[in-house]
Amino acid sequence: MLSGRSWVLGVSVKEVGEPFFGVNPRCGSSLDPPFYSATVADGDAALEAADAAFAEFSSLPGSRRAELLEAIACELEEGCDGLLERAHEETALSLDRLASERARACHQLRLYGAEVRGEAWRGLRQESAQPARRPVPCPDLRRMCVPLGPVVVFGASNFPLAYSVVGGDVASALAVGCPVVVKAHEAHPGTSEIAARAIIRAIARLGLPQGVFALLHGPGPTVGTALVKHPLTTAVAFTGSLPAGRALWDAAAARPVPIPVFAEMGSINPIFILPGAMRARPLEIAVGLAASVNGGCGQFCTKPGLVVVHESAGFDDFLAALAGETRRAPAGIALHAGIAAAFRQRTRDWLGREGVAEVARGCGSGQAQGAEVSSVLLRTDGETFVQNRGILDQENFGPVCLVVTVKAPEEMFRVARGLGGQLTATIHKEEGDREASRELTRILMRKAGRLIQNGFPTGVEVCGAMTHGGPYPATTDSRFTSVGTAALERFLRPVTFQNFLQEDLPEPLRDGHAHSGSSVSFSSL
Amino acid sequence: MLSGRSWVLGVSVKEVGEPFFGVNPRCGSSLDPPFYSATVADGDAALEAADAAFAEFSSLPGSRRAELLEAIACELEEGCDGLLERAHEETALSLDRLASERARACHQLRLYGAEVRGEAWRGLRQESAQPARRPVPCPDLRRMCVPLGPVVVFGASNFPLAYSVVGGDVASALAVGCPVVVKAHEAHPGTSEIAARAIIRAIARLGLPQGVFALLHGPGPTVGTALVKHPLTTAVAFTGSLPAGRALWDAAAARPVPIPVFAEMGSINPIFILPGAMRARPLEIAVGLAASVNGGCGQFCTKPGLVVVHESAGFDDFLAALAGETRRAPAGIALHAGIAAAFRQRTRDWLGREGVAEVARGCGSGQAQGAEVSSVLLRTDGETFVQNRGILDQENFGPVCLVVTVKAPEEMFRVARGLGGQLTATIHKEEGDREASRELTRILMRKAGRLIQNGFPTGVEVCGAMTHGGPYPATTDSRFTSVGTAALERFLRPVTFQNFLQEDLPEPLRDGHAHSGSSVSFSSL
Repeated sequence: MLSGRSWVLGVSVKEVGEPFFGVNPRCGSSLDPPFYSATVADGDAALEAADAAFAEFSSLPGSRRAELLEAIACELEEGCDGLLERAHEETALSLDRLASERARACHQLRLYGAEVRGEAWRGLRQESAQPARRPVPCPDLRRMCVPLGPVVVFGASNFPLAYSVVGGDVASALAVGCPVVVKAHEAHPGTSEIAARAIIRAIARLGLPQGVFALLHGPGPTVGTALVKHPLTTAVAFTGSLPAGRALWDAAAARPVPIPVFAEMGSINPIFILPGAMRARPLEIAVGLAASVNGGCGQFCTKPGLVVVHESAGFDDFLAALAGETRRAPAGIALHAGIAAAFRQRTRDWLGREGVAEVARGCGSGQAQGAEVSSVLLRTDGETFVQNRGILDQENFGPVCLVVTVKAPEEMFRVARGLGGQLTATIHKEEGDREASRELTRILMRKAGRLIQNGFPTGVEVCGAMTHGGPYPATTDSRFTSVGTAALERFLRPVTFQNFLQEDLPEPLRDGHAHSGSSVSFSSL
Repeated sequence: MLSGRSWVLGVSVKEVGEPFFGVNPRCGSSLDPPFYSATVADGDAALEAADAAFAEFSSLPGSRRAELLEAIACELEEGCDGLLERAHEETALSLDRLASERARACHQLRLYGAEVRGEAWRGLRQESAQPARRPVPCPDLRRMCVPLGPVVVFGASNFPLAYSVVGGDVASALAVGCPVVVKAHEAHPGTSEIAARAIIRAIARLGLPQGVFALLHGPGPTVGTALVKHPLTTAVAFTGSLPAGRALWDAAAARPVPIPVFAEMGSINPIFILPGAMRARPLEIAVGLAASVNGGCGQFCTKPGLVVVHESAGFDDFLAALAGETRRAPAGIALHAGIAAAFRQRTRDWLGREGVAEVARGCGSGQAQGAEVSSVLLRTDGETFVQNRGILDQENFGPVCLVVTVKAPEEMFRVARGLGGQLTATIHKEEGDREASRELTRILMRKAGRLIQNGFPTGVEVCGAMTHGGPYPATTDSRFTSVGTAALERFLRPVTFQNFLQEDLPEPLRDGHAHSGSSVSFSSL
């Protein structure tokens, strides 16, 4: 039974104002029950509760917070009747896909839990005292990382489970001891409530303070912006569009006390196909590429939206195969009608540019409307692409791919050098491509958080070695990742304890614990 | 022979416009030669050269950059005739202090060099491929940290060697492979030029590209702001005042492509003396505190500007001893007349507040003028302090300390809770103070980057376990430090290589190198 309300301190808050509704993107009809936007007072209450819970929550042993994450995973797996069905209704994602996304969310919760059962995340470092050192003694110095404080997380529309209320941002913040206030994405309010109540039950089951989690509804920017500006907020995590992410960045940077914002805003994930690879594997690349473009209806942040190729041997076969795959791709339903409308509009804008041509279009009514989208394959040349910088190199969220043909390696490098920051960049190469591949790698290392060889960018492994981040506009801070255990670092800061008595040190810093000590030292001013 | 010019690509640039001069703060007289501000074109040239040098410099083995840092240290020790003397003229710091600061700068260069001779700074992580994994294979994933790109560093006035042209920011950026453009502090242009030429000689000696370093003069905000806004700048490091640091933060955050700014803007470094400690060590604490307040003429960023105490047993002895130390403190010469004038003005403002009294004042002409400053000891009560938030809790750069008396532990906690972010916070405690000390520690962990027990905050050890940072306004990003080997992290970002052939991987990621591997993994979308 959905309440349609926001949740603070483990209970639902009073309904105020006009309701809004979840919408079934397949037919555009509203879904019951009505939902109500949180008020400014609800935001205050959520952040005050989060701040009040911080002292206790942050000083728990990591294993206790691991138990919380594991309990949330169990709730998602066993205690959330109707979760996948509601998500299916609200997002048009298939039940299979949602089941797999739930598995990913649960894996993520358990992985980050396992991470904080260990000690590596604390970044422990020790410098032993040298009382006899000249000219001045060296003090005993012990450093550990501590959580920042309350974190505001914005749910993402394209992963209603793995990037949203029970997603990676929430899991990483909770893992290290940061209470979380989630601003639910308005496209899946019911899914958000079910997931939020799973967290609330898990907190209750473990006897932890309910202030560590709150869910606030709030369509439009008002509630979210107020949360970012709130004095008790210490960090923000967001996944979504460039304009929305930039607005949050700007609001946070202009605060009297600026706070870190990790906004992951997507990218076009360019794929470069070198001549040797094109000659050797034109059909294989075309089939893999089409699957990567059309998977999830083109709504992955790692969807490849740009392919840069030479018109060399194999290219005609490649393009024909890719066109065939595009034509065979069934029409899909976008997460909501707004995404579909923006996709159609941007695709029309691109086609209106001189030098841009449509190669193929997927199945569908032909008169796409509502949330229906069909796969589109476009083509242009390197010169046109470079001249249309700021337009053709922008993310177009949906099942579209732009093939850019170049005449020489230097033109391919020029296209690469002109790109903005990316989550991923991919190179297809074979034996004879070594030199061009090396130069491209050098260029793309400055552009992207993940480089892929002979593969496709969709499929983000949740593990320690993953980087899901990249230079702006892929994210607002290329030094961090939002996927993988390194995601926890976004919400941690180091504190050094100087000459503390053993009994006064935080437990992880006392003698007898393992430190990754450094032994270098020197007198200083 | 000083040229008075900026240096780009290893050579001095043409003089343009009106000159400015270094000033001897002892007498206010100008020092030859005239110096010339860099132009916008010089800034462009410096950053273009830095960007052009980045590919080669960043791909060198760490040991090559270690050699550069070591060569700079050797130049500072053996090849810079007149360095300390010029710094002494420009800053009024004693030759002994400057010799010790040079030793610190050289230690820092060698320590960061040693750090990048190792591999830990690269943050290597590997996830082995699992081709047979269901439902999807796990790719081979290898992560390493790479440098951001050209870094703009602002010289600090209070450490003309260890925080300036050859200081910690430059050393950490060069260590990881970031070319550096330094905006010289206008208060020590000659010292800056001598240090810059030491770097230029070291670069030449090792045959490295001269684009990796440039020195630009530019009094006032124009040149510095242009450097921060330049599209090729990828990060900024600054040490100085809150208004100047905040202006740079705002400029960087408002860029079309925002970039990280680590601005260290100082703090009041509160000291809390608990009753047991006051009873046990009133004189010892007073003597140590006075030395910490007056050292370097009160111009350390870790100078304790606030002492919070109970008026309990020992307090009268403590205050009398502190007053005696203050009266005996010789007058000093500030780094420049502007610092002294601001110090006198702020101290007058404080004394104009009802409830704030002067306890003692140091030796001096009594009619302080120019750059002369005398030590000042002020006193108020907790209520007055809390009511004057935003005034009495702001940094007053110079030899002044404000003693705040409280009536109960809760009032001490209240003062602590109301403080802004700090570089350091100190607790003096003995046996009976355990409970109050623990509560204070809990409060201060959220406020400061370094907590000190029974000591004083000045003296920042350069080592792996140091945190010289803290919540705003101490710095603009509490997740980093500007001192110690962790300072390198400010200029690094992770990149993950997926399914790369061995021969195409960067050397540190190839098989046979040591990785701190993670073995967790799971299928993902």
